[in-house]
Formats: sequence, C-alpha cells, structure tokens
Amino acid sequence: MTIQFAITALTTVLGDRLSVAKPDLEAHGASETHFPPAPPDAVAYPLDTDEVSQIMQICNEHDCPVIPYGAGTSLEGHTLAVKGGVTIDLGRMNRLLAVNAEDMDVVIQPGLTREELNTELRTTGLFFPVDPGANATLGGMASTRASGTTAVRYGTMRDNVLALEVVLADGRVIRTGSRARKSSAGYDLTALFVGAEGTLGIITELTLRLHGQPEAISSAVCSFDDIGDAVNAVIATIQMGIPMARIEFIDADTTRACNAYSGTDMPEVPHLLVEFHGSDAGVAEQAERFGEIVQDMGGTGFKWSAKTEERNALWDMRHKAYYACVALRKGATAVVTDVCVPISRLAQAVEETRADIAASPIPGPILGHVGDGNFHAILLVEPGNEAEMKTAKDLSNRMVERALAMGGTATGEHGIGIGKLDYMPAEHGDGWDVMGDIKSVMDPKYTLNPAKVVRPT
Amino acid sequence: MTIQFAITALTTVLGDRLSVAKPDLEAHGASETHFPPAPPDAVAYPLDTDEVSQIMQICNEHDCPVIPYGAGTSLEGHTLAVKGGVTIDLGRMNRLLAVNAEDMDVVIQPGLTREELNTELRTTGLFFPVDPGANATLGGMASTRASGTTAVRYGTMRDNVLALEVVLADGRVIRTGSRARKSSAGYDLTALFVGAEGTLGIITELTLRLHGQPEAISSAVCSFDDIGDAVNAVIATIQMGIPMARIEFIDADTTRACNAYSGTDMPEVPHLLVEFHGSDAGVAEQAERFGEIVQDMGGTGFKWSAKTEERNALWDMRHKAYYACVALRKGATAVVTDVCVPISRLAQAVEETRADIAASPIPGPILGHVGDGNFHAILLVEPGNEAEMKTAKDLSNRMVERALAMGGTATGEHGIGIGKLDYMPAEHGDGWDVMGDIKSVMDPKYTLNPAKVVRPT
Repeated sequence: MTIQFAITALTTVLGDRLSVAKPDLEAHGASETHFPPAPPDAVAYPLDTDEVSQIMQICNEHDCPVIPYGAGTSLEGHTLAVKGGVTIDLGRMNRLLAVNAEDMDVVIQPGLTREELNTELRTTGLFFPVDPGANATLGGMASTRASGTTAVRYGTMRDNVLALEVVLADGRVIRTGSRARKSSAGYDLTALFVGAEGTLGIITELTLRLHGQPEAISSAVCSFDDIGDAVNAVIATIQMGIPMARIEFIDADTTRACNAYSGTDMPEVPHLLVEFHGSDAGVAEQAERFGEIVQDMGGTGFKWSAKTEERNALWDMRHKAYYACVALRKGATAVVTDVCVPISRLAQAVEETRADIAASPIPGPILGHVGDGNFHAILLVEPGNEAEMKTAKDLSNRMVERALAMGGTATGEHGIGIGKLDYMPAEHGDGWDVMGDIKSVMDPKYTLNPAKVVRPT
Repeated sequence: MTIQFAITALTTVLGDRLSVAKPDLEAHGASETHFPPAPPDAVAYPLDTDEVSQIMQICNEHDCPVIPYGAGTSLEGHTLAVKGGVTIDLGRMNRLLAVNAEDMDVVIQPGLTREELNTELRTTGLFFPVDPGANATLGGMASTRASGTTAVRYGTMRDNVLALEVVLADGRVIRTGSRARKSSAGYDLTALFVGAEGTLGIITELTLRLHGQPEAISSAVCSFDDIGDAVNAVIATIQMGIPMARIEFIDADTTRACNAYSGTDMPEVPHLLVEFHGSDAGVAEQAERFGEIVQDMGGTGFKWSAKTEERNALWDMRHKAYYACVALRKGATAVVTDVCVPISRLAQAVEETRADIAASPIPGPILGHVGDGNFHAILLVEPGNEAEMKTAKDLSNRMVERALAMGGTATGEHGIGIGKLDYMPAEHGDGWDVMGDIKSVMDPKYTLNPAKVVRPT
C-alpha cells in the first residue's frame, strides 16, 4: 500500500497533473527496443523544481519508487517501472532559461529536447553539438551520458554539461558545478550525476556548453573493401590532428539498408561518412588531406562537398540508418548493441562480430562512431521468437565479452538501464561495489529508479 | 599510539623504505606557499600497487592517517600532515607502463612527472598537453584536477584521464574507466577520483589521453591599455571558433616583473600571449585572423611568429612569471589566489581585484588563463608580518566572494587542500554535505588525507 499512500499524497500536491490513466501508464511503461512493458502506478507532470522536490519528499516518505522520464528514447529500458511506483515526466519542464552568448553556455530545464534547443539557438551563431540521433531530452541525454555522431570532435554529455541542479532522494535541492569553465573545488558531483540514470537524484536544470556554429562545413564519403583499411584511415587522420567533426562507419549491410530506405545508390560495401567544421580554407584543406589518406589506405570513390543540400542528404540518411536497418526485416524487434573499444582493436572487433552474425540465423547490420571506437550491431529478431531472442542475446554477450577483453566497455553511449546490468561485475569488479556504496548513502531507501545501474538489493 | 602501531607494522613490510628520519619528515611536511609546516610521523616509499594496498590495510586497521605525495608542488597545503600519520611518497612509482600510439593513450604510474612523460614521448609524434607550469607528478595533477596554460584547447586533467587504478581506504584495488574513448557504463568513478585530492583513495596507475604533436605552432603577443578590450578580443576569438592552444593574460605589474626577471622589454601594460597549433596554413590563418580581432579591439604591438626560439622564449618567460612576481618583493611569501569566473565577467573581476590590491599596502601582480576565465593574484607578504598576511587573506576572500557571486568558483585549478576549505559551504551549499556523505561511505574512518576537501569531523 505504500505506493498508494504516495499517490494519494501526490494528488493533493499535483491535482490532475498526477495521472493514473491507463494510456498514460502504458505509454510510460513501454520501451523503444525489446524489453517487455513495465508501466508505473502513476505519472507525475511537475512544472518546476519545487514540485519535483515535493514529489521526492512524498515518495521517500512512503518508500515509493520514482522513475525520471524525458522523451522515452532510451534503448536499455531505463524508464521501465520494474518495481512500479511513480514516473516523473519532465516534459513540461522544457524551458530555455538563459542564453549566455559571451560565455557560450545555456541554462535549460531537463525536458527541452536537443532539436528544440538548437532551433532556439539558430540566430545566436551558437549550437549544442551532442547528437545521439533521436530527438531526446537534454535531461535524459545527461542521465545516460549520451553522445553520438559528433563526439569525436565535441565530446559527449560528460564534456558538455557544466553544471546541474539536482533534487536528491529526500527532496533537498543541490547545485553542482558552476558557470566557470573549470573548477578544482572538491568532488566532481556534476560528473557523478551525468550517467547516473536517475538513480542518485533527478536533474531539474542543466547548464550546457555551446559551440560556435562553424563558418564552413564540408562532408565526404568514401568506400573500403576492408574494415581494417577504413579504421587505419581514421587512425591516421586523428594522429595527423585533422579535426573531424563526424566520422561514421556503415558496413555493407547497413549501406544496403540505407539504399533501400533513403533511395541512395552507394555501392554495397563498407563506407566512411565524414564531416569537417572550420573556416572555408580550413575545411577544404582538411577534406583534401583526408582524401589523400583514404587513397593511401586503399579507399575508393572519395568525394567531398561543401554544399548544404548534399550534406543534409548524407546525414539525413545516416540519422535514419537505425530505422533503415530495422526495416531490413519486416516487423522485426531490434536488439541494439553498443560496445566501445580502443580504436586499435576496432577492426578486429567489428570483423569478429561480423563473422559471428554471419554464422547466426539472424540479420545484424553494423554501424558505428568509428572515431570513438564505438559501434552497434542492430540484431533483428522475429517478435515472439524465443530462440532468435536467445541468439541475439548470445551475440550481444559475445560482443561485450570481446570488448571487455580488448580494454573496452559494454556500452559506449546507451547506458546500463536493465539491459546491461549483468555486465557490470565483469566490467567494474569491486568498482561496482563502490557504485553501490555511493548509491546506498545517497538513496538509502533505494527508491530512485530502482533495479538500474547498481546491484539490486 | 595508533600511529606508532601502524609505523611498527609498516616497517615489517617496507624495511628501510619506511623513513622516520627528520629531514624526510620535514621535507614532506613543507608547503610551496604560506602554510606552516606539518610533518608526518613517517614517510613510506612503496614500489608497487601491492605495497600501497598493504600500507592502506595497515593504516586503516590502526586508524592512522595517510597522505599521498607526488612532487610537493601543490599550492593549497594538500600534502600537509595536519593530523600526523604516514605520507605515501609515490615518487618511486614513476614508470611509463605502455604507450599505445594508435589509440593515442599512455599508461603510467602516478609518480611520473609531466616533463618526464613528454620526454619519453618525444619520438612518438604524440604529447601530453596539460601544463600547470610546475613539473608536477601526473598522479598529483589528477588528484588536484590540474590544468594551466593549455586547458583552453586541450582541457584539464578531468578531460585527459581515461582510466585509473585506485587503492581504496581498506586496501582493495579497483580500476575505473577503460581504454575506450567513452563509456556510459555506470557512475563516473574516474571523474570522482580526479580532483578528490587523495581523500577517497590513492591513485596507483593512470591511463591518459595523448594528442598529436602539432605540425606547426605559431605564437603571438599583443598589448592592450584596457583589460576589458583584451577580454573582448578573447571572447570574439573563441566565438569565431579560432582554436587557440594557449591564451594568457598578464597585467602591467606582471609584465614589469617578467621584464626584470627574464630580461624582456615589453611595454609595461597588460598583454595577451597566444599560441596556435595546427597545419602550416592553419596556424598562419589563425594568427592573422586573431591579429585582425586584436586591431578591432584596440590592441597594439601585435606580432606573430612561427619561429621555435621566439616561441620558447615567450613561454619560458610565462612559465617563470610566478617566480618573477615573487621576486618583485625580496624575500616575500606568496599567497596565491585562483578564482575562475564566466568569461563575460572576467574583465570586471580582474578590474575590481586590481582596484582592491591597489588600495592595499601589498603588491599583487595578476596573471591568468583568460580563455578559461581563470586568474591568479600573487599577493606578496613580508614573512612573519601578521597584518600583511591578514590583508592578503582579506583580499583573497573578496576575490572568492566576487567570483562566487558571478557564478564562478573559488579555485579554477589549484584545488581545496586546507587553503580553500572555508569556501566550500558558500560554493556548494548542501552539495558539500553530499561530498561528505560520499567520503563517509568510502573512507569511514576518515584516515585518507584528513581535514582536506570535506567537512572535518
């Protein structure tokens, strides 16, 4: 009954902004990928930090789980209410609070999405670069330490969150970090909450770094017969200090999927898609030097362009690659993998994964952020086919084990949620217990997004 | 007697690598700046992680404080044994363990200094960019989240530590992070230990990001009558996306000090010192565009050069600026301040500080990392003059209060130690209690570098 007591108390505070309507519960209990639904008992729609604080106090008092929710685009079941409780939908806290153009930062509420933010910034000459593909909320992106196609140049959410306001489990509101560009003032609480997936507190305000809109952008495409050559081209480019803004790998299957989905006509071999940001002279120089490296490494079909429409078509295709891959198999459910390895091991990791998938009965196109050593296989499973699901999970396990053996990580950018929880002991050893210790002191009742990230109690 | 019991037990493990010789204790109990000496009861010189683990187990069992020690170059009394105990001098754990050139990372022990590392890397085409001026150990630089002149381009230690091996208070050894460029696998323990000043564990191994040695480097110098114009030139440069590798401000007093100390003949007005890294064409373009901005903003005397000897002379002068400033007043003790503010507030912060110092009886040249909004006043106090020390501390207080009111921080790069502890409540509010909670669960006996960073018990 503790959850019901909490709901009764919350109704007094929130009125009709506490919903127990079945469609609301179902919408908030669904997953983008293969996880079974787990709806909460109620959904709260707070309007400000003070309301979030009241919700947290009430839920803490009644031992009621709370799950933060942004746009629901996470891929590892982060927002599933596996222990029931109250989902806090932060979608109505989506205001841009301040643009500090001289300081190149912005203060926002967590429910603002990255596309909304960049639309607001259009006339400022500034932009927010982190781009996971989905139009996620920025609070959600911080909570999963998201990244995507531009991380090779601009970093991940870890690098682009300057400061946070966070409501703790007991309702206290703290501020971490500051608008200063750097600080050595004590423990880095900002970094602790970024990637904590709502298990240590709820983010209610973010200060983000902005970057200058580049004066010029050029993009390039080239193909390789061999993934090893493609990776060597990337390594050489990075070592020469050529500052790529994006460098994406798509394998032959993904290329085929994109051709079918976006109407392109690329040869069905592995490709690199690249973007350069800089001055007019700079991007031309960068593209030309990259072209020379591609040629040295046996790449073909290199062409570059500074034309906006060609570039937009290229990245539109890349952004739709996930949906293109899913469409390769009609009605399929996706198991999305997300390993990241040192770049020197990337070719081997991709090739061995490719061979594993080829020996299995399910399709699994591969694509990735090759400059970071991060890649995904989109494993396509027939819904309800238990044998195929087991095959997909076995393939995923092998990818993770291989990545860890290579000095990498089980998840480059998607996070733990419930999907990667079983890999935490292997990846962190006693470090996982340290995470549990921190959880135990910051959320002693284990009500914040329970059964995610740390060892379940 | 608990400390004595620990020392007896440690002698069994370490033999003559546990020292109680007075010169050793005094050397490890001294400070670079104005803090009174606080020697430990013993100094341990471990050779490997296993020995550090044994030391930690023994000290934990006997409630004996342990203080990690690198090169002793910290500025806020970080290594002072204010509660006695055992200083762990990591100077003999100074090996370079692996250079992974393709991955652009390096694995090292904590006692290696940044100059030693860059000497080792000389022939690899790679370098480690973080440069706080002093030839600190890299373990110490990680522990204080150090930065310096190159942070505007390459980031701080926060951005350049990929992974750590850490010995916890009870002797357990954990690994945080991995050699992957990014990860979303749980709490960011690497970021938690970076800047923790040895209060949560002892760093025994670091994996650091490396960067390609730039193909070309150009440097430039220019002067401004007015600090506001200088800062506006920097803001415009950053907003235009011109990638400066260094951009340093020195005020008229610092310029005078440098002229006297390094034999230069700059006009005694505020200066900007700038460096660009890139291709030959890139650095020429960057320097020229910066020169145009300087002219627009009323700067004079702009000249740039790609000549190595001119550049080395420039940065040699800048690196010696601290000693040049101290030499302005014969025999003086320095109180070094370290505030960091949003760059839009930097001119005001510097001007008001300048006015405060001018109205005081002590000299205080100002210099700073203007691209980060971080600056230092070197307040020069006559040794033993209590009134002057109080004046210096009052000036420092005012700088910190102003920085916090402007949305900045009490310390941009030097850390807390004992010198900035009193500012933690004002800067972090309840966030300081969260730091204390984390400390309490990770070091329940409060033996790790006690009386630093968190609220004393």
